[in-house]
Amino acid sequence: MDLLIQTAAAVEMIHTYSLIHDDLPSMDDDDLRRGRETCHRKFDESTAILAGDALQAKAFQTIAGDLGLDESLRLKLIAGLGHAASRMVTGQQLDLEAEGKELAIDEVKNIHANKTGALIEFSVSAGAMIGHADQNELDAIERYGQSLGLLFQITDDLLDVTETSESLGKTAGKDARSEKATYPSVIGVEGTKNLADAVHETAVAALRELDHPHQILTQIAEFIRNRQS
Amino acid sequence: MDLLIQTAAAVEMIHTYSLIHDDLPSMDDDDLRRGRETCHRKFDESTAILAGDALQAKAFQTIAGDLGLDESLRLKLIAGLGHAASRMVTGQQLDLEAEGKELAIDEVKNIHANKTGALIEFSVSAGAMIGHADQNELDAIERYGQSLGLLFQITDDLLDVTETSESLGKTAGKDARSEKATYPSVIGVEGTKNLADAVHETAVAALRELDHPHQILTQIAEFIRNRQS
Repeated sequence: MDLLIQTAAAVEMIHTYSLIHDDLPSMDDDDLRRGRETCHRKFDESTAILAGDALQAKAFQTIAGDLGLDESLRLKLIAGLGHAASRMVTGQQLDLEAEGKELAIDEVKNIHANKTGALIEFSVSAGAMIGHADQNELDAIERYGQSLGLLFQITDDLLDVTETSESLGKTAGKDARSEKATYPSVIGVEGTKNLADAVHETAVAALRELDHPHQILTQIAEFIRNRQS
Repeated sequence: MDLLIQTAAAVEMIHTYSLIHDDLPSMDDDDLRRGRETCHRKFDESTAILAGDALQAKAFQTIAGDLGLDESLRLKLIAGLGHAASRMVTGQQLDLEAEGKELAIDEVKNIHANKTGALIEFSVSAGAMIGHADQNELDAIERYGQSLGLLFQITDDLLDVTETSESLGKTAGKDARSEKATYPSVIGVEGTKNLADAVHETAVAALRELDHPHQILTQIAEFIRNRQS
């Protein structure tokens, strides 16, 4: 199988495992995900924990896959995905520990850079690595990925305040009820919208340094800025 | 760092994560592990889930470690560890689904080959791979590992029936109370002891095919056969 597809599948496995575990009763305790029952509601808690555990193992196994091909690159991708998955867990732990506490904006940023940003950064960088980007391009892509991750979380927080559960496909208004550290709770809805615009501009600016076509990356940043769900 | 140490550390991380998750309330719901409070009792459930999740990511990251060294072997180890970790989860799921049901001895064996055996097999085979064993030796070591894993579970089931919580460092008699599929429940205590002796002999027989010294491997099989905790 193509390394790009294998890596994309591995990222999706890590992402899905993280959603399944985040939705668990002892974490965010959520009943709804993508408009459907969460895994532990549809099945049971142990099945949800094990499904997540198996998905994580399968993710690394998938990239290690075809032995003898692109060995050096595969190892780099596994190390990078492992690092991103570790950071994601760090972010989730910090997020849970922050519930009910007043955080400074930098603390909120740090939580989300790890919880949400790390895997988005890896996804973007992995594509560039597999496409044999040079170091300048990798640096620009990394900055784009960091901004994209931040932008995703900022708009996620905004949507939780402004949208309904129906349009989101997951429970709206949960952040406030569980006293989560969010951008609107720290800098208000208008401040959050302005921050989203600034971060979007940073992301698009990084892309301008690329020699290769990057229209789809521009569109992704646009999509995340304007998403309604 | 030495690849042998990195791989051993990775196996221990996977093993520890599996114990932390297995002890969770929705799984085996255990309060005691190695004579101390289990992770979710000492801290809380979300911390225990996340500690396990982080350990699994770190395990793969650790083997991917030093880029540029032993790349082919590292990828094989990651693929093997990923496969073992997936099988372990499969075994745990089958084990939970079997609670309260009557199983045939082959079904019990299949559960334990996955749940406990897979990681023991990988540990043994990984050592041989890192030591550059030839194919005949790898085959013999694999058979030894399979028998060792089976032997471990058989003696585990025996100890749950015959020992106290104090001597085990974990709660004794739990299998019967939770209607687990165990060897004593299917073939009785005496039958289980005889099976342990036969499997021990199979393990030791496999070692006789090795050209290299294997006294410590013989001693490990002996130790597992005779362990009291």
